[in-house]
Amino acid sequence: MNGHINVSELQKDLRHSGTDDLQAVKEVRKLVIDICRQNGGGHGGSAIGMAPMAVALWKHAMRYNPSNTEWFDRDRFVLSNGHAAMLQYVMLHVSGYPHMTTDELKLYGSPKTVDKATKTWKSTICHAHPEREVPGIEVTTGPLGQGIANAVGLAIASKNMAATFNRPGLKIVNSHIYCITGDGCLQEGVASESASIAGHLGLDNLTLLYDNNQVTCDGPLDWIVSEDTNAKMRSVGWHVIDVWDGDTSVANIASALAQAKLTRGKPTFINIRTTIGHGTSTAGTYKSHHGTYTEEDAARQATNGIASTHTLSEKCRQYWSQVVIRGRDLESEWNQKMQKYSASFPDLAKVLHQRMTGKIDIDFLDMLDVPEAVSATRTFNGTVFNAIMEKVPNTMAGGADLWNSNQMGDQSNRIFDSCHPDGRVVRYGIREHAMASISNGIAAYSEGCFIPVTATFFMFYLYAAAGVRMGALSNLKVIHVATHDSIGEGQNGPTHQPVELDSLFRAMPNLLYIRPADSEEVVGAWITALTADTRPSIISLARDPAGSIIKNTNRGKVKKGGYVLVENEKAEVTLISCGSELQFACEAATRLTQEGIATRVVSMPCIKLFEEQPIEYQVSVLSSSTHVISVEAYVSSMWARFCTASVAMDSFGYSGAGRENFARFGIDTDGVVGKVKAAVQEYANKSHEVSSRRWKLLK
Amino acid sequence: MNGHINVSELQKDLRHSGTDDLQAVKEVRKLVIDICRQNGGGHGGSAIGMAPMAVALWKHAMRYNPSNTEWFDRDRFVLSNGHAAMLQYVMLHVSGYPHMTTDELKLYGSPKTVDKATKTWKSTICHAHPEREVPGIEVTTGPLGQGIANAVGLAIASKNMAATFNRPGLKIVNSHIYCITGDGCLQEGVASESASIAGHLGLDNLTLLYDNNQVTCDGPLDWIVSEDTNAKMRSVGWHVIDVWDGDTSVANIASALAQAKLTRGKPTFINIRTTIGHGTSTAGTYKSHHGTYTEEDAARQATNGIASTHTLSEKCRQYWSQVVIRGRDLESEWNQKMQKYSASFPDLAKVLHQRMTGKIDIDFLDMLDVPEAVSATRTFNGTVFNAIMEKVPNTMAGGADLWNSNQMGDQSNRIFDSCHPDGRVVRYGIREHAMASISNGIAAYSEGCFIPVTATFFMFYLYAAAGVRMGALSNLKVIHVATHDSIGEGQNGPTHQPVELDSLFRAMPNLLYIRPADSEEVVGAWITALTADTRPSIISLARDPAGSIIKNTNRGKVKKGGYVLVENEKAEVTLISCGSELQFACEAATRLTQEGIATRVVSMPCIKLFEEQPIEYQVSVLSSSTHVISVEAYVSSMWARFCTASVAMDSFGYSGAGRENFARFGIDTDGVVGKVKAAVQEYANKSHEVSSRRWKLLK
Repeated sequence: MNGHINVSELQKDLRHSGTDDLQAVKEVRKLVIDICRQNGGGHGGSAIGMAPMAVALWKHAMRYNPSNTEWFDRDRFVLSNGHAAMLQYVMLHVSGYPHMTTDELKLYGSPKTVDKATKTWKSTICHAHPEREVPGIEVTTGPLGQGIANAVGLAIASKNMAATFNRPGLKIVNSHIYCITGDGCLQEGVASESASIAGHLGLDNLTLLYDNNQVTCDGPLDWIVSEDTNAKMRSVGWHVIDVWDGDTSVANIASALAQAKLTRGKPTFINIRTTIGHGTSTAGTYKSHHGTYTEEDAARQATNGIASTHTLSEKCRQYWSQVVIRGRDLESEWNQKMQKYSASFPDLAKVLHQRMTGKIDIDFLDMLDVPEAVSATRTFNGTVFNAIMEKVPNTMAGGADLWNSNQMGDQSNRIFDSCHPDGRVVRYGIREHAMASISNGIAAYSEGCFIPVTATFFMFYLYAAAGVRMGALSNLKVIHVATHDSIGEGQNGPTHQPVELDSLFRAMPNLLYIRPADSEEVVGAWITALTADTRPSIISLARDPAGSIIKNTNRGKVKKGGYVLVENEKAEVTLISCGSELQFACEAATRLTQEGIATRVVSMPCIKLFEEQPIEYQVSVLSSSTHVISVEAYVSSMWARFCTASVAMDSFGYSGAGRENFARFGIDTDGVVGKVKAAVQEYANKSHEVSSRRWKLLK
Repeated sequence: MNGHINVSELQKDLRHSGTDDLQAVKEVRKLVIDICRQNGGGHGGSAIGMAPMAVALWKHAMRYNPSNTEWFDRDRFVLSNGHAAMLQYVMLHVSGYPHMTTDELKLYGSPKTVDKATKTWKSTICHAHPEREVPGIEVTTGPLGQGIANAVGLAIASKNMAATFNRPGLKIVNSHIYCITGDGCLQEGVASESASIAGHLGLDNLTLLYDNNQVTCDGPLDWIVSEDTNAKMRSVGWHVIDVWDGDTSVANIASALAQAKLTRGKPTFINIRTTIGHGTSTAGTYKSHHGTYTEEDAARQATNGIASTHTLSEKCRQYWSQVVIRGRDLESEWNQKMQKYSASFPDLAKVLHQRMTGKIDIDFLDMLDVPEAVSATRTFNGTVFNAIMEKVPNTMAGGADLWNSNQMGDQSNRIFDSCHPDGRVVRYGIREHAMASISNGIAAYSEGCFIPVTATFFMFYLYAAAGVRMGALSNLKVIHVATHDSIGEGQNGPTHQPVELDSLFRAMPNLLYIRPADSEEVVGAWITALTADTRPSIISLARDPAGSIIKNTNRGKVKKGGYVLVENEKAEVTLISCGSELQFACEAATRLTQEGIATRVVSMPCIKLFEEQPIEYQVSVLSSSTHVISVEAYVSSMWARFCTASVAMDSFGYSGAGRENFARFGIDTDGVVGKVKAAVQEYANKSHEVSSRRWKLLK
């Protein structure tokens, strides 16, 4: 091996390694059984069934370097059926990733107790499902179907990098994306959405291996599925290859993988028939899905003797050691190519280097002028977004067929499709969940290399929420542009008007839900989101203009989450608000103060960031006014932690224009003034003694 | 017409009504244009394009009675592309539903202001999207794709009713389900999931009409879709019929509908080529999607003269008046059949009558014994659920391939499938969103006739959340059984451990999120959910047993949302908790009281129900203890409204067994005791003065 893989070599390699391959499969299976036996359970059945395809991938198909998990031009692997995580750990172990030691494998599913010396909790890298924080794991998977979307995202990223940076004779981006899916993932809507868009985009750098074992958690697949899966994949534009002996033939799987890599214009779906728990006592049944294995099951796979657990035979160690050498060779050959590239294309190389290090320059946002006239936050957002697309090459955006309504601007010269893989705007179609999960895949391609941006109405992020969550859990910087927020959504009615969705995203760990009130804060929201390197953000925007200019908003203060907008040292009332409703709060404060109720105003575009400020800052912003009242056209969940009361929603919205709706639900200026006056009066009447501590929804 | 429709009659009718049909189409289009012109916009384009299929449905295919929208044996219609709602309003209007007056049509999209006399807000029945509260609208639609799932649910319901109650010669359930979908719905994952399960179940009483106009909001469909839709539908088990002249031929659409009705063993997909905004100046373009129409556009469709808006010609009025007569005849013929049925099958008729009135008898739940030993709430839930399946014939349950893990019990003798349409348990497969949205359709079949129950892990209700929301918005009693809640989920790690999902569902209007702590409260949760006639519920359950018996829990008090479990008149601390964590709260209270910090305990299985109690009751439960502290292994969103502080999560979970996780995150008994003592001490040290009002997360 001299570090270079091509198909003919792969096949040559294959001819010579048949029996070795089968022994490797047995030893992978034995390791899986050992792991399942260490704690009396685990998702071993599919891991056992997938062992031949894993050997085909790690030995004969994938380009990777176990010694450097971050090698830029590696192929990417996604285990969409993440419950079979132990297969991935075993493969990292056998193929020589130094951190995946036998001791780590033994921690899978084991109790993680407190270390008495340090009083810290023991941790593991062999999580129940693969987590991206572990070197060698590209994306976190587990909730079914999303891994396929992640793989589509990785394929888009790789296509785009290749189209942007490769030059004739100097192909420095070659990453192929491999993904394994089980029966479960394929049933999920997000998988259908992702398969459809992958076919539409002709992602021929993507290979999906289907572990077709016809068994799910509850029983045989034909209880719940009777479709022709190959026909379905062909109908959405995939090349389909069958492998009929997936339990035993590494060679046939490797051959299919080689064919997939040669296929042009289409992603490839390899339908591999396997037996769940092949060779064990529960083989082929749902009991194997999350099963325990007997000593006999272990003995049947043992080449090293049954007593020796978690080990490889010497022969197998040699078999895999070649992979370590090949990996180093691959990377060093690539490094040489990069040197030539830097010499031949110094400007491009500089940009590429910036992309690889994830550095961005957004100083221009500090300088960006905002319009003096009032405009809808979605409108000025379009201006900011277009400036970012122009100046930050890392941005890879896309929308779910509401691009015009989102007012994201004309990006028709930057569309990413099969003819223009260097484009940076993906038309995701009406596939919100796929959009979010594909974006996670794009972000996961290489730290900071891409900053994915998605766009649709805020309400439809409920379809995408499981994807947004995985981005938050995986520390991926993805920016979601959510227009038409709150009951101000406009005419579409309660089906399109989020009133409770903010509660989900504000509670979601590691996600920033940012709701700017005007153009100035829109700039601040983008600065905040673009610099939050390990967090996704939702920038939540209004359909319609706020009715009056809000004074004193400050882009630089958005990252503090909340700040004082209108100070009043004698204030009896503090109003806290954000988004469209901040204008009402400001107008109400003026009127209340004029009427003798001194009122100050706090702008709070991001509750989570505010709570991360030092307590002294928080106290100074919240003040000690008797009444601290939030004003927002959502069901009030998070505000009670700061507030004595809230002007808020407690029902779904209505089919009425935004301004009408704010009035209908008493959240416009008149509504706020009336409710605050009543609250102040009630307090003065001492009726508060009954339950003075309790937060109230003002009606 | 003598009230009986069969295919040959439909076709005979069709031969005679060709030119009348075309005039009817023109007048439907004119009405749509009039509506769009009344406020300078609206989703008219697809309504115009779909006019021929609407005329084919309302004149030639559907069995319905405009004089009685609740006639039990009517066919059901779902407009999945709900943004074209005006088409449905126009069809209800022309076909003679008395409440859908011209004045109502004129309210579509018009300002709804305050009525000065009554000071109430004017309302509309012509909402921007169809809403189920309006007679003649079967389900609320709007968020794309879900209408297809609703239609699948209606078809399951009708199949099941027919199989349960029809007898040879006395077919009293004959409802066929018709659904129109646009290009948008078909791209959504929930549509793919639903199509797949409908094909699997062989729902031949379901016809899906595809308004194939090749245009979406942003532009031409081929920007985002390049699949072979017919092949895709065939691959998942549908019969496919093409109609090539859908803009002009009512006859060909009606013929396809007749063929669909004759098809056995498969649902039918009719692919109807249309032009969005046919005959208008923006025809065939995305501009027609949400467009305004010119006077010329109106004139082109006018048969009554352009000046006369919102009217029908006399000829057209006569054409539609036959439908009213036919409808009355259909119902009276059915009533006669019902009389015969009651005489022939009095026992069955009695059960049917109970189903039709939605009455259920759940007194047995008051008497149900609970085990003395501690068991996981999911485990005892299985016992309760199985008793309900036995005694309440309305229940129509199903799970998303985690039935065994959900511990829902062996229901293999009740499976609903194409061979056993009288079964009452649907295997939904790994299709959570479809499961929830299909269940909405089942519930919408006829008020109270079915009580759908769904089941999966709580985390995966995030995939289903958009469906759960539509159930809440539509006042549908659907009961979602969500096991494996919180970080106690078990070994699966953060991808499977909800920490923020309760925030969404607790904030969602009209949804009850009920989290019982033990077997006694599980019974209470079911009593509450089964009697909440206009609300869906989530019953949230733990994987593992709570460690110790909780005294004083009370099934009857669950419906109050919260109640005192351990009283202590001198209490300095009140702990409020639910679910698995209530045991920790109780144990902590005992220890704290022993250590001199008098502590009482409140069980609060449902925050929303508690907030609906009289304020005096709420105050008595919360008490005036200095510290009111919630204990729950979720991010604390809603608790701050009652509490001074919370023991809660502020991060994602971890791959550790449930008990380990509670300890790792300091939410077990030791954790609660330690945090509460620190809070009491801090308060005593007066450091609370800095921010005494603010709720705190205890660390």
